[in-house]
This record gives sequence, C-alpha cells and structure tokens, in this order.
Amino acid sequence: SSSSSSSTNDKSFNLSDKRKISYSNFKGLERIDIREFFEDKSGELKPSSKGISLTREQFMVILENGDTIKDWIKESK
Amino acid sequence: SSSSSSSTNDKSFNLSDKRKISYSNFKGLERIDIREFFEDKSGELKPSSKGISLTREQFMVILENGDTIKDWIKESK
Repeated sequence: SSSSSSSTNDKSFNLSDKRKISYSNFKGLERIDIREFFEDKSGELKPSSKGISLTREQFMVILENGDTIKDWIKESK
Repeated sequence: SSSSSSSTNDKSFNLSDKRKISYSNFKGLERIDIREFFEDKSGELKPSSKGISLTREQFMVILENGDTIKDWIKESK
C-alpha cells in the first residue's frame, strides 16, 4: 500500500511492501532512489540491487511528464 | 536532456543520455520501467540491470507524492 513513512525525518514513501522511493542529500550529492528491498536473516530490510538512483534533474523529467504517462496508462485500458 | 522520444509509438522519455522511463503493456501486464542503458559493441542501446520496473499502482504513488518530494529537494538547497 502507499502509506508514507512513520519517521518524520525519513524522506521516503513506500511504493509497495518492499519498494520505496527515498530522498537523500549526502554532502550536496542529491539522489532520489527508487528501490526494492529484501529481508535479511535477522528480518531487517536491506536495499537490493533492483533499483535506480536518480539525480534531481532526472527525477524532475518524470514529474514533468507525469500527465503524459498517465495518458499512456489510460489509453491502454 | 529531457527530450521526448522521436517515435510516436514509443512510449518513453529520456531522463538523460542513457536513462529512460518507458511504458509497456504486454498482454495486459503493464509496467513503467525506469532504466539505464548501455551501448553494445555495435553501438546499439541495450537495457542494463540498473533500473526498476514498476506497476501502475507503484508509479502512481510517485506522482501522487511529487509535490512532497519536490519540497524535500527545495528544503535541502
């Protein structure tokens, strides 16, 4: 489901049970990461290799074209 | 740059030189794929393992939270 994160400092949203979009800024290096996680032996969620880390500019292209992509989804119903 | 695809049938946008977001519907299996490509020996662009294929629902969570993510980006300026 699409609930937001429980922590107020954690800049992320759940896309599904084990998928997240998260924002990070490490010493000015901004990344918007869309990634699948897996449970390790201790039950902790760890990032998998399935995903991609976008720059601010790349992420903005997605948002700017959101309506077009929504149209593609509608057309194919 | 963020130019749209040249082909009218190709439902994709370039996020960068070698990154794309693309929509596909194969026998009702819809996917929104955000992926990095690489050039093979013949110069053809091939999908790399770097990326993630989202369902319609997962993609909609991103769009629905676009304003919040934009706020995160602005805050950290």
